[in-house]
Amino acid sequence: MSAGRLIGVGVGPGDPELMTLRALRALGEADVVAYFAKAGNESHSHAIAACHLRAGVTQLPLFYPVTTERPKCSDAYRDAIRDFYEAAAAKIATYLDAGCIVAVICEGDPLFYGSYMHLHARLAPRFPAEIVAGVTGMSGCWSAAATPIAQGDDVFTVMPATLPEHELARRLADADAAVVMKVGRHLPKVRRALACSGRLSRAIYVERGTMVGSKMIPLAAKSDDDAPYFAVVLVPGWEERP
Amino acid sequence: MSAGRLIGVGVGPGDPELMTLRALRALGEADVVAYFAKAGNESHSHAIAACHLRAGVTQLPLFYPVTTERPKCSDAYRDAIRDFYEAAAAKIATYLDAGCIVAVICEGDPLFYGSYMHLHARLAPRFPAEIVAGVTGMSGCWSAAATPIAQGDDVFTVMPATLPEHELARRLADADAAVVMKVGRHLPKVRRALACSGRLSRAIYVERGTMVGSKMIPLAAKSDDDAPYFAVVLVPGWEERP
Repeated sequence: MSAGRLIGVGVGPGDPELMTLRALRALGEADVVAYFAKAGNESHSHAIAACHLRAGVTQLPLFYPVTTERPKCSDAYRDAIRDFYEAAAAKIATYLDAGCIVAVICEGDPLFYGSYMHLHARLAPRFPAEIVAGVTGMSGCWSAAATPIAQGDDVFTVMPATLPEHELARRLADADAAVVMKVGRHLPKVRRALACSGRLSRAIYVERGTMVGSKMIPLAAKSDDDAPYFAVVLVPGWEERP
Repeated sequence: MSAGRLIGVGVGPGDPELMTLRALRALGEADVVAYFAKAGNESHSHAIAACHLRAGVTQLPLFYPVTTERPKCSDAYRDAIRDFYEAAAAKIATYLDAGCIVAVICEGDPLFYGSYMHLHARLAPRFPAEIVAGVTGMSGCWSAAATPIAQGDDVFTVMPATLPEHELARRLADADAAVVMKVGRHLPKVRRALACSGRLSRAIYVERGTMVGSKMIPLAAKSDDDAPYFAVVLVPGWEERP
């Protein structure tokens, strides 16, 4: 019996039509479709790919551990996350050892801020592994907002809203174009950093990118500080354009 | 007669299977398919999408002006490029005024370092316009190289190899993960900047991403300084990972 094959499949930013032909083919080939999910929540990647899953395919949800009570920088948090990835990789390895093709579906692109990479690092040394690139969440956001983000020799930076305010301001001032991710409760800080770096007037707030109920407005026009965790702020570059 | 509709269609990084379902639908709907090309060269976007064009669809190549003899910072260069975009937008507007659906196909993602945005800025104020996000060239590269690029709270920066050496080195040292674009004849400078910022040992050189004849090796193991214009260097982040 030959060993199985692992495929990390990007399913794009939310709209199922933004899946690639290669992603569809991978779902058609797979014996097992695995996906990350938060216990009690629907998995985004599963919702995106649902209509393309083969009838009878084995589905393997990988539930993140509940870690809200542990601080993110603690050893306990790190250990819980590491143990989770180890256990998830072991489960998948069982199927790969049995000769199965296992597709791990990932929102956006598998190797760009995706959890899949933690499985890839553990399994690719032992099994044939392939990546199917996907449209990233941020491409989905600036496309839905019809906002050209970067051109020519622009420097483009992606930064998490978790950075300290002075770091956000410094990096926003240092880039031609930027995306601030994971905005959530950090929105007031992000707003101040944008003002401090002179970029607030160009910033666009985007919620739920290419999903149903998406919302996009100039950040300066947003009158409250409510933002879900996955909201992003786009700062377009290309100020000097022909 | 109703006005036409403009669609900026990302066709992904090179492999035609990395086109999205939405891109295919746009090509099916379009009366006119426009694409940028260098005179005498095959258009990348056209090559990617060719097998999905409807028989008999009107094809509109937009040939970049030859500007090699003009320095990039000169007024003459700027004027030639601006005139070109103006003329291209005017040609497309003729079709839109006649009620046609015009798809402009773009390698990668239309609003991420793509020429389409110059048409969008000129035409979207006058006509209904829509963007179909695509898999970027850089996603294609790190996926083909199976190289996880960024995770968690990594800061990720895209920079052009045209920057001065000290700027490249400063920005490489300041980012967790990076992509250096348009490497070409700048490879020796990029190599020195990576060494100076302590990132050379992690850097991966990628040529022709997801296309036939792709090549990827650790930059430190590349023994020559030959690189085509579109070669990229990937510097993966996520050094601290669970």
